[in-house]
Amino acid sequence: MQYLFVGGNSGSWTLKKQTVILGEPMPDISHLQIVGPDENQLIQNPTWILRGFTSNIRYTNHTEDVELKKQSAPLGRVEATHGAMIILKKSVAWWNLAQDERRRIFEEESKHIQIGMKFLPEVSRRLHHSRDLNEPFDFITWFEYAPEYENAFSDLADQLRATKEWQYIDREIDYRFIKSEQAR
Amino acid sequence: MQYLFVGGNSGSWTLKKQTVILGEPMPDISHLQIVGPDENQLIQNPTWILRGFTSNIRYTNHTEDVELKKQSAPLGRVEATHGAMIILKKSVAWWNLAQDERRRIFEEESKHIQIGMKFLPEVSRRLHHSRDLNEPFDFITWFEYAPEYENAFSDLADQLRATKEWQYIDREIDYRFIKSEQAR
Repeated sequence: MQYLFVGGNSGSWTLKKQTVILGEPMPDISHLQIVGPDENQLIQNPTWILRGFTSNIRYTNHTEDVELKKQSAPLGRVEATHGAMIILKKSVAWWNLAQDERRRIFEEESKHIQIGMKFLPEVSRRLHHSRDLNEPFDFITWFEYAPEYENAFSDLADQLRATKEWQYIDREIDYRFIKSEQAR
Repeated sequence: MQYLFVGGNSGSWTLKKQTVILGEPMPDISHLQIVGPDENQLIQNPTWILRGFTSNIRYTNHTEDVELKKQSAPLGRVEATHGAMIILKKSVAWWNLAQDERRRIFEEESKHIQIGMKFLPEVSRRLHHSRDLNEPFDFITWFEYAPEYENAFSDLADQLRATKEWQYIDREIDYRFIKSEQAR
């Protein structure tokens, strides 16, 4: 299922803050529109468009998957008026690793799933893969949460950035948004 | 890196045999043209086009990867005038499995890598992923070998089809080709 993340001067999500964590910045935007696979929206004057697809899970094992599904909340909750988009590019060194090496760094050494789990169900999440579409970033992760969890979300991002997995990140931008009144 | 597999009545590869192993057949073709990511070819009157991208390895562990790289031969060898295209769709049940469950079926139970390894370096191979592009098949695998290995290749395909992994296959078509004189 392919999604478009359309940055520009209109859209349901109003930019609150943008932080270039690592690497080249992106052209400035004031709004974001997310266009789902079944939506026919006219995209007008976008500053940029990022594309990504949801896919099968790549590292999560069965036990973790059961736990994640049990604890996760869906996107689109009424109270979740704050959104975040983290766009990431991993290094060539990462992609050249074998599956077992990437899994070991991802979870056994960096506890990516375990860290994320601590913030469930407050923070909802959808991962989109972009690398195989020759996009400028490898992943687009979209998060939604209620305003009172903005600091918790920042805490989650900081914890992940301190891991060994993040040593394989070449480029990262962290966008925070607020849902427009009309879109609520 | 995205590749196009263009079926029709022209192309570098002439159809020798087509076998519907499981599921719906595809419209008949007499030739195949493979269009690489950097090629600008005019595609004329194709019967169908299948798309797929090469990507990072998904199940192979480090030890297996080292061994595979040591033993594999590249595509495009002068003597490898025979080609095969196997197109596969896996079941929803497969894609709903977690990573460790798919790996276990793929290698520990089905020995996919181990079986394939026995046919190296004679059979060269390139895997293309299609599922995330919403294509009719999940994978397009392209193989090349010298004429004397046609039977060995059939043996390889038969061995894989007898595995547990293949119980998760919903659709499969096996195409065999011969490289046209002009393309050699």
